[in-house]
Amino acid sequence: MGIGNAIVDVLAQVDDDFLARFELNKGAMTLIDADRAEALYAALPSGLECSGGSAANTVAGVAMLGGTAGFIGKVRDDQLGQVFTHDIRAAGVEFDTPLSTDGAPTARSMIAVTPDAQRTMNTYLGACVGLTPADIDANLIARADITYLEGYLWDPPQAKAAFRQAMHVCHKAGKMVALTLSDSFCVGRWREEFLDLVENQVDILFANEAELKALYQAPDFDTALQRVRSKVQIAALTRSEKGSVVASGDELHVIDAARIGPVVDTTGAGDLYASGFMYGLTQGRDLGTCGRIGSVCAGAVIAQVGARPTASLRELVATRIK
Amino acid sequence: MGIGNAIVDVLAQVDDDFLARFELNKGAMTLIDADRAEALYAALPSGLECSGGSAANTVAGVAMLGGTAGFIGKVRDDQLGQVFTHDIRAAGVEFDTPLSTDGAPTARSMIAVTPDAQRTMNTYLGACVGLTPADIDANLIARADITYLEGYLWDPPQAKAAFRQAMHVCHKAGKMVALTLSDSFCVGRWREEFLDLVENQVDILFANEAELKALYQAPDFDTALQRVRSKVQIAALTRSEKGSVVASGDELHVIDAARIGPVVDTTGAGDLYASGFMYGLTQGRDLGTCGRIGSVCAGAVIAQVGARPTASLRELVATRIK
Repeated sequence: MGIGNAIVDVLAQVDDDFLARFELNKGAMTLIDADRAEALYAALPSGLECSGGSAANTVAGVAMLGGTAGFIGKVRDDQLGQVFTHDIRAAGVEFDTPLSTDGAPTARSMIAVTPDAQRTMNTYLGACVGLTPADIDANLIARADITYLEGYLWDPPQAKAAFRQAMHVCHKAGKMVALTLSDSFCVGRWREEFLDLVENQVDILFANEAELKALYQAPDFDTALQRVRSKVQIAALTRSEKGSVVASGDELHVIDAARIGPVVDTTGAGDLYASGFMYGLTQGRDLGTCGRIGSVCAGAVIAQVGARPTASLRELVATRIK
Repeated sequence: MGIGNAIVDVLAQVDDDFLARFELNKGAMTLIDADRAEALYAALPSGLECSGGSAANTVAGVAMLGGTAGFIGKVRDDQLGQVFTHDIRAAGVEFDTPLSTDGAPTARSMIAVTPDAQRTMNTYLGACVGLTPADIDANLIARADITYLEGYLWDPPQAKAAFRQAMHVCHKAGKMVALTLSDSFCVGRWREEFLDLVENQVDILFANEAELKALYQAPDFDTALQRVRSKVQIAALTRSEKGSVVASGDELHVIDAARIGPVVDTTGAGDLYASGFMYGLTQGRDLGTCGRIGSVCAGAVIAQVGARPTASLRELVATRIK
């Protein structure tokens, strides 16, 4: 079960000068308002629209792998809201959050992809700010083995309350709460609250190296790793081309990145790693194998443009994982 | 205390065609006979001579860091033997193994460095085959906190007996035995014996990823890591640009590579990592810090040509390690 901001991505290839001209924060997710979104969209070259949103990408990946997945997130009853709804259902994900019928339009993230395959995200949250505790379907959550929440939800104020509600329902049902830290700037905005969450509420933590270092204000990866090991039941830590590290109690795995093809767009790498990892976990695979499945899914999504894989994840995993 | 083959390196820059023409095994250490050594030397472009030998490089690094280090290894009383002796003593290492006065000349390794900074070694063992148990100075070994042995010693038959003798003396004195696997082809030649050594005799194991995978015939790094964790007290595992992993019981550190400058010649990277690691250990540093000191020393030696650092390791470590 994924809960997150429901976003349609606009992906466009730009050069580094474009980032400099618009003072875009390379590699990060920056929140923008409606005016800025319009100005940026006007300046972007012709791009590709595709459904996105971090947790939404993750559950779409789980469904593609053959898992059973659901999503809670807020779109409006506008064209992009229809696109989002169509795509996530077409991926095989249960999605029944009521669409909002007034207020801001469906969220959009303008993703500038540079020649080095880095993605720089500029997100107008729009309808996402309408997610409230009333949208948290307790039955859906109680049915899921894992409820997966994105740190980005800490940005829209009411979503934070929905997030807390979801954790409460999940733990009451005896199931696991997973969190992705989402973005190092997001960690910067909400560091104290995230530290408390990780220590007291989260069973499975997903973070990349920059996010983990930001969380613990650590000078290097290993220092942060030693901190997180004692705080959370399972930590799955991604490190781009260096692969990932999975820690759980005394158990620790150092997993290679999987190369599926040339890297063209890193959008969705972390999201799809989480898909593979949690799919493995719900299939009863050992933690090392969960990490390897995550690597294959991440390797597939960065070999294409956009955060929803077009290749068959199921076949890739069947071929590459014993 | 280091025990190893005492070798003078001849380093020359070549292109990949040169490797192909002479059927050289890129990245590996290949043993060659006197005739092949002569033919190869005749074909090599003008190069640089400098003292080498894996364990010798390591103890030279320890001394440069401010540690107390000794070396046992066999050279002849010829010009290169004088060069080797001069250089290791000039580095501050105690070296008193009797020179051989007849038989094969001092060992030479012709190291072909390709534009990708990879080194391909072709070693004529020469006088090294004259190392015998009689050369193992029990007093020297008993004084040392760690006796460090190179897997390459398994190649000259009598050296193997000297190696076993050294382990016996070291453990009897209550000190630690460290082993480097040296080279994945060397592991291939002596795999069964190395497995036994690692499980039953070695306290600290140094290996790079290829060597470790060869030892456990593992498909990936993590599988090999899980195997070695239960077999040896401390494993320090190097992974080139991916840094290193240090495992000891439940403790596990994932250490970044240190970038000191552009990478020009990877000769000595593993040797100098071991210098830093063991120096840290004898100074009572925690294992994560030992790994970080190792990274700095390795980063320094790959930013120059040759396996004995010219930069001050002591200053580099003082600046970069808290």
